[in-house]
Amino acid sequence: MTTSDRPRARDLGIQIGALPTGKWNAITDVAGVRVGHTTLVRGEGSLIPGVGPVRTGVTAILPQPGDLFEEKVVAAVHRINGFGEVTNSEQVHEMGVLEGPIMLTGTMNVPRVADAVIDWALARNPAMGVTTWGISPIVAECSDAWLNDLRGRHVNAQHVFAAIEAATSGPVAEGCVGSGTGMSCYEFKGGIGTSSRVIDQSLGGFTVGVLVMSNFGRRTQLRIDGVPVGQALADWPEPAATAAPPGRSSIIIVLATDAPMDPRQLRRLCVRAGAGLARTGSTYGTTSGDFLIAFSTANRIPHAPKEPSLPIRIVAEDGPVINALFGAVVEATEEAILNSLFKATTMVGRDGHTRYALPIEATLAILGRHGREVNRLR
Amino acid sequence: MTTSDRPRARDLGIQIGALPTGKWNAITDVAGVRVGHTTLVRGEGSLIPGVGPVRTGVTAILPQPGDLFEEKVVAAVHRINGFGEVTNSEQVHEMGVLEGPIMLTGTMNVPRVADAVIDWALARNPAMGVTTWGISPIVAECSDAWLNDLRGRHVNAQHVFAAIEAATSGPVAEGCVGSGTGMSCYEFKGGIGTSSRVIDQSLGGFTVGVLVMSNFGRRTQLRIDGVPVGQALADWPEPAATAAPPGRSSIIIVLATDAPMDPRQLRRLCVRAGAGLARTGSTYGTTSGDFLIAFSTANRIPHAPKEPSLPIRIVAEDGPVINALFGAVVEATEEAILNSLFKATTMVGRDGHTRYALPIEATLAILGRHGREVNRLR
Amino acid sequence: MTTSDRPRARDLGIQIGALPTGKWNAITDVAGVRVGHTTLVRGEGSLIPGVGPVRTGVTAILPQPGDLFEEKVVAAVHRINGFGEVTNSEQVHEMGVLEGPIMLTGTMNVPRVADAVIDWALARNPAMGVTTWGISPIVAECSDAWLNDLRGRHVNAQHVFAAIEAATSGPVAEGCVGSGTGMSCYEFKGGIGTSSRVIDQSLGGFTVGVLVMSNFGRRTQLRIDGVPVGQALADWPEPAATAAPPGRSSIIIVLATDAPMDPRQLRRLCVRAGAGLARTGSTYGTTSGDFLIAFSTANRIPHAPKEPSLPIRIVAEDGPVINALFGAVVEATEEAILNSLFKATTMVGRDGHTRYALPIEATLAILGRHGREVNRLR
Amino acid sequence: MTTSDRPRARDLGIQIGALPTGKWNAITDVAGVRVGHTTLVRGEGSLIPGVGPVRTGVTAILPQPGDLFEEKVVAAVHRINGFGEVTNSEQVHEMGVLEGPIMLTGTMNVPRVADAVIDWALARNPAMGVTTWGISPIVAECSDAWLNDLRGRHVNAQHVFAAIEAATSGPVAEGCVGSGTGMSCYEFKGGIGTSSRVIDQSLGGFTVGVLVMSNFGRRTQLRIDGVPVGQALADWPEPAATAAPPGRSSIIIVLATDAPMDPRQLRRLCVRAGAGLARTGSTYGTTSGDFLIAFSTANRIPHAPKEPSLPIRIVAEDGPVINALFGAVVEATEEAILNSLFKATTMVGRDGHTRYALPIEATLAILGRHGREVNRLR
Repeated sequence: MTTSDRPRARDLGIQIGALPTGKWNAITDVAGVRVGHTTLVRGEGSLIPGVGPVRTGVTAILPQPGDLFEEKVVAAVHRINGFGEVTNSEQVHEMGVLEGPIMLTGTMNVPRVADAVIDWALARNPAMGVTTWGISPIVAECSDAWLNDLRGRHVNAQHVFAAIEAATSGPVAEGCVGSGTGMSCYEFKGGIGTSSRVIDQSLGGFTVGVLVMSNFGRRTQLRIDGVPVGQALADWPEPAATAAPPGRSSIIIVLATDAPMDPRQLRRLCVRAGAGLARTGSTYGTTSGDFLIAFSTANRIPHAPKEPSLPIRIVAEDGPVINALFGAVVEATEEAILNSLFKATTMVGRDGHTRYALPIEATLAILGRHGREVNRLR
Repeated sequence: MTTSDRPRARDLGIQIGALPTGKWNAITDVAGVRVGHTTLVRGEGSLIPGVGPVRTGVTAILPQPGDLFEEKVVAAVHRINGFGEVTNSEQVHEMGVLEGPIMLTGTMNVPRVADAVIDWALARNPAMGVTTWGISPIVAECSDAWLNDLRGRHVNAQHVFAAIEAATSGPVAEGCVGSGTGMSCYEFKGGIGTSSRVIDQSLGGFTVGVLVMSNFGRRTQLRIDGVPVGQALADWPEPAATAAPPGRSSIIIVLATDAPMDPRQLRRLCVRAGAGLARTGSTYGTTSGDFLIAFSTANRIPHAPKEPSLPIRIVAEDGPVINALFGAVVEATEEAILNSLFKATTMVGRDGHTRYALPIEATLAILGRHGREVNRLR
Repeated sequence: MTTSDRPRARDLGIQIGALPTGKWNAITDVAGVRVGHTTLVRGEGSLIPGVGPVRTGVTAILPQPGDLFEEKVVAAVHRINGFGEVTNSEQVHEMGVLEGPIMLTGTMNVPRVADAVIDWALARNPAMGVTTWGISPIVAECSDAWLNDLRGRHVNAQHVFAAIEAATSGPVAEGCVGSGTGMSCYEFKGGIGTSSRVIDQSLGGFTVGVLVMSNFGRRTQLRIDGVPVGQALADWPEPAATAAPPGRSSIIIVLATDAPMDPRQLRRLCVRAGAGLARTGSTYGTTSGDFLIAFSTANRIPHAPKEPSLPIRIVAEDGPVINALFGAVVEATEEAILNSLFKATTMVGRDGHTRYALPIEATLAILGRHGREVNRLR
Repeated sequence: MTTSDRPRARDLGIQIGALPTGKWNAITDVAGVRVGHTTLVRGEGSLIPGVGPVRTGVTAILPQPGDLFEEKVVAAVHRINGFGEVTNSEQVHEMGVLEGPIMLTGTMNVPRVADAVIDWALARNPAMGVTTWGISPIVAECSDAWLNDLRGRHVNAQHVFAAIEAATSGPVAEGCVGSGTGMSCYEFKGGIGTSSRVIDQSLGGFTVGVLVMSNFGRRTQLRIDGVPVGQALADWPEPAATAAPPGRSSIIIVLATDAPMDPRQLRRLCVRAGAGLARTGSTYGTTSGDFLIAFSTANRIPHAPKEPSLPIRIVAEDGPVINALFGAVVEATEEAILNSLFKATTMVGRDGHTRYALPIEATLAILGRHGREVNRLR
């Protein structure tokens, strides 16, 4: 699956914040993190529930290269608005670790994806469920019902395995890929977006990476670097473009860092991702599932510790180090959401529902009128 | 599926607390609540992962007799210890309602049960996922890995439909039924138990009903009405009887009331169920998923309210009313757990693992030696 | 104490959001809410700890006109970042009501203000502490240490009584008044600001009012309606203007509404105030006490209810009504913070520390360069 | 102030649980922890509000021997039922540290004690409030209104300083001392109690120490090691003995350990203290402030860390180590509450209100009738 050839926000000179990005400006800038997608696009025309059209998929984020169950990463799940599901969030609240991949998908696929993750884990660990406990899968969702045959639950186990196996480091495909395939953001086409930031070496030189699945917001709310782009495009290209999706919207934000943190500190990072989300215009709608899943690759907890206690590290919280990380989270979240908009391409789905991609030329013109220096398209 | 003919705690003269029970001494004493079970017992001998032996099941609790999605009941989910799963708990935290049945099952069945609940709901509501949002299934679990082929995930959609369709008011089958089939409690055979209390008419005459799926605890911890029965039975009938289960234990406590409450008040009730659990000896083990799911049948929220605001009622919290409800919760929780022990029968499961039923004569003798007036067996 | 004659944001044509304000564009637009200030400005020159200079005060918000203890309003306290204090927040979390005035003050004054509120309440209720429980005062704080002799704790009981007695409906004094006297915001002079919004009559016509005590942020973070004003004024009027305050910063946001809500719903509103705060540029600094105190005047809980249960109302949460309230909270919070900046005047405090007022002409010029239509100063 | 010469529970052969105690069976068994009391008993007869009789005090717990502000201990505050106050709990939730002593006192004294702690800290640190932030005092309370002139708020700064300065390691005075002076527990005389447990060396050999200020419960609820002692003493020595106190009851539980933990883990311990409390009979009354304050002496966070990150240790959570600590917390909490009852002496307070000490002979007789082997009094 390749990503679109549309530019990312930064390619257009849109500069979010002040901190430098990592090499790929992606969640994979946190060493060891891998991302894989399975994208499902099939059929067109009227919705036949259970049949199609299909505009959905699944995305896998693997927090570290080793055995995820044997070597758990410290983690937190955080709810901004809870109209949605992150499976096994309570276990993360209690134990503060992830023990498998993070899976993103469309709403009604959640149980099937979770079941497949269990399959995948059982196949790798014969002791699971026999002499030790089993994996508690982490699956988060947004509703792709506007473009996709949601009732069909078209993601199956093979799709899940493929996404996990496809996971790689390096550049991350964005836009209409994986779980982002059928998603809408500010009534434009949304989906997957990613970004990263690196804080100063004197403060530890830590990296923060963010990956979002974006599926929320009213057109008129959209702001790009503070500019009310959505209002200017309120009826673009036609009033019907802003038709409301059925029921629920959401954003899932996955936050990775190599800064050493305990779950309480990760939760503090998560709260700041909410600020990044707010900067793009969101007011966290009532039927939105706005969740964070955060992890630190710097602290690993063995499945069966050999000693009564174990060492971890935490970052200094008295000021500059964690404040720099907070800024990094806000910036990377804002830019990841923008990338999900800039990279996504116009899609026609069920019942001819059309979700237009953010118009780049028009957007740049609006930004220019608001005093922002941006590039023109190549 | 019929329940065992073993007596309930109260049949033996074991009197937990001071409040009167409802008619059935069951969660179904809260008007409109129904319970149904599907029980799966198949095969014996060595564990063949994916094949058997099978000792598992599924239990459905339906909070009210009407359309659960169109007329939501006010609810709360509460975590005592979070090593386990209650699906869609975050949505309950946010919105404070249930929009479907509460399902209990064995750990690795969770996704399949959730998927089946979606099937069930979709079949009843063609708008779901098309013009309105879909159901967020509530599925909670304990691990039956000691007796059951956990890896086989033997609960399928038909079992789920059967449990929901079987749900009735009136007496509730207890012990080795439904999701309780393969569960262990204090290293005796556990499973499903239920109890209820009614507070004084001057305080509103409200009913509290509790249903538990019990699967936790070390033998030596067990207390019955404060008497250290578990210590006296530490090696009964043989030391091997207390072999440790693999990994995780849990208890799911479902709490129903007709007292009018908002989600904050229901959470207050939930905390008191933790006290009832503690009285039986639990210290809330680290790998235990000890969760509450509570609902009030007195407050219904329509799926699509017609007015900008709607009325609900809450109970007085300045003293006697809610304190009586607190006491009711503690008593009913303690007794429901005891009923899960008294009603369960000895079961042999995978690899010949034997989980003995609580020995009634011996237990009564111990209670007698500790100054408790109890009946002898008929 | 009169407010400054500087204009409010809206007087300058700065339009935050789309919803109309209430009559006063103030928290007092929620019927029955009153605000009073005591402002303390005394001495100048070098800091003599315990003596001066004094730049502090106290502000009182009274949620309803009746006896606050006998007729409690439904309430919530919410933590965005918890480096700070809201006294008795745990009781609000548990019981969901306020039983007295909300007091704002400088950090080290908190105990003295709380003690004075107890004095005030005891004088009005001879049963308190004798035959019924006593008031649990709500006091929130920010640190005015940059301008004020914090160690002197200059607010005494008479100041507290005066603020409560001074509380009135109608226009609210903003800027360097009451508890806002010594506060800094984005390294400009901050303090008290307020704003309100009214949602459409078809959605209930409810009012949301916000009052902030602002004392947070780095200069370069400040955004006004999305425009990076702070960066453009980074060294205005001199680099020294952005000297760091000692230790902690904060914002307290008080949120009033006549929309009927239970505490869970009020917490949902509080989360959206965090979005309003983020829009002005905040990343919620690590040593910031960023708290919300929210209440609904529509639901009153008597101190001693006469019936086992009582009615309250809640707003519809399936979509438009609560989404409109969310938007109202975001807009009013953003504008209240801006008003705290626009209304505050330059202040010289301890050790000659100078906190400049936001320069209005320069700010308007920056806004103009960013494509915003604003008025010039009269 | 010396403790009573009544026996502790263990002196009477009452054995709570299975784990060994530390040397003093006190919170001070956690190395470095110190406790000090100031006890105020003055006047008798009718209540003259503001004058007397006085039955109150203040207790200080110092978590480590060094500078508490410069070397913070990792901590958590946990609410079982929140009708009460722990000042600055939100800051502990956010930052996970204590930066001063833990103070316990009577309800309306809280602000005065907090103010005195600020005095105490300012005197020791001239930078506080000038170039760094100030201390956030931790003060928790129960209401001694049944015996004491609550409205008089008789604890002043000198009493606070005296309690802090009196703090020592070794045995801890229990019963009617310090903040426990005017407290009631299960309608007997309560107050201060303490206990400790040591887990097996193979599991780390960690110590858990608990100190309670007990002021809760109805007589009939009291259980001692599971035996319903309170019911048997329902009208002892006269029905009037169980007169209800005005309004609120509470328990504050302070939990110390040298097991290395982060705040999330400490919160897990706190939840288990609720089980210990439940075992004595509590159902966590609605107007009860049942709070935990927990800290680990094994993890210290410097006020101004010199590196971007710092090491801490956490205990293994996969099973035996933390389960042993959970058991230790439950046992020590139960025994500390019992010690507060056994050590307290009958007290006559305001308006001739008499709170009887638990009658030891009668209690032992009841325990004996319930099959418990106990000593007779010497």
